[in-house]
Amino acid sequence: MVLPGFQDKKVVLASASPRRELLMRGLDIPLEIVRDIPVDESYPGTLDPQDIPVYLARKKADAASGLLKENSILLTADTIVILDDKVIEKPRDATHARSMLIRLSGNMHRVLTGVCMRSVEKEICFTAESKVYFSKLSTAEIDYYVEKYHPFDKAGSYGIQEWIGYAGVERIEGSFFNVMGLPVHRVYKYLKEF
Amino acid sequence: MVLPGFQDKKVVLASASPRRELLMRGLDIPLEIVRDIPVDESYPGTLDPQDIPVYLARKKADAASGLLKENSILLTADTIVILDDKVIEKPRDATHARSMLIRLSGNMHRVLTGVCMRSVEKEICFTAESKVYFSKLSTAEIDYYVEKYHPFDKAGSYGIQEWIGYAGVERIEGSFFNVMGLPVHRVYKYLKEF
Repeated sequence: MVLPGFQDKKVVLASASPRRELLMRGLDIPLEIVRDIPVDESYPGTLDPQDIPVYLARKKADAASGLLKENSILLTADTIVILDDKVIEKPRDATHARSMLIRLSGNMHRVLTGVCMRSVEKEICFTAESKVYFSKLSTAEIDYYVEKYHPFDKAGSYGIQEWIGYAGVERIEGSFFNVMGLPVHRVYKYLKEF
Repeated sequence: MVLPGFQDKKVVLASASPRRELLMRGLDIPLEIVRDIPVDESYPGTLDPQDIPVYLARKKADAASGLLKENSILLTADTIVILDDKVIEKPRDATHARSMLIRLSGNMHRVLTGVCMRSVEKEICFTAESKVYFSKLSTAEIDYYVEKYHPFDKAGSYGIQEWIGYAGVERIEGSFFNVMGLPVHRVYKYLKEF
């Protein structure tokens, strides 16, 4: 059974993220994954935090453009975490991860994902935002999470699909999947009519 | 490594739902699953829809109370879908599932889960609500979903962790996991201090 609207399309996801792969596979769209495109993930310090994820998604698309073929759509994305208008990066080590999670505990933060879809003819880029409300976590709980789950490869030091997502997130406004790394609903909508 | 607050506790989840099991396992709490407790899932027709899930969760707890031991906490739950103040049940067949999804398409509906936690000494029951906003789905998309995923065991004819959840849900207000069948964040909070 073929999904309506996707008979002649194929998406090339250029991403090393296993979560983005999982989400894209959930869309049942013909898919190819390319994991090893090197990209310099720096951005101008003058850039508004709002504009960083789509800036980086476009940079990733530029780096992977050689993969583009007729009837294929290249997809790239970047996710950042913003607390009090400041970007929360990936942690350097366990101490840094703990201090990030202490800041997120009991607070709302924003997760922004920038997405670029590019074919030989056109490009669509957009940013999706979700608000995440963490409950107040004790230092014993934060220590438990950091020691057991090692969230060092994750912006904001957490994965919403891990223990802390089950136990520590009070509510979300917006897309849950955006917090995991890709606003698949909007991606699907654009791809359908690409 | 033991989760702080759960050194001497064990949860007995009386539920046949693989989704509830998955969510509870995510909490890292000592857990036992009992899948085969027969329960009559009828409720008085005069009951306010808001009160149905916790009524059924309590009925399930009554049916499983024989499992209770010292230091263990029995957990039961029931989830319903409400659209325009009416309960949307599990579908009878593919035609019924399609007509339910046509009603959900382009609309907001509410997902309510009632939860009961019971020990030899006390009981805590509560209801959690999430709002789910579906995008407008075509009949071809609805046919695709029903034919491929057979959502006949699901209230409202859909699973948020399946294709339709990725492609068709615009936003959620509240807990994503509640839509999957258990508001684990609140369960965790209560269990910690049970």
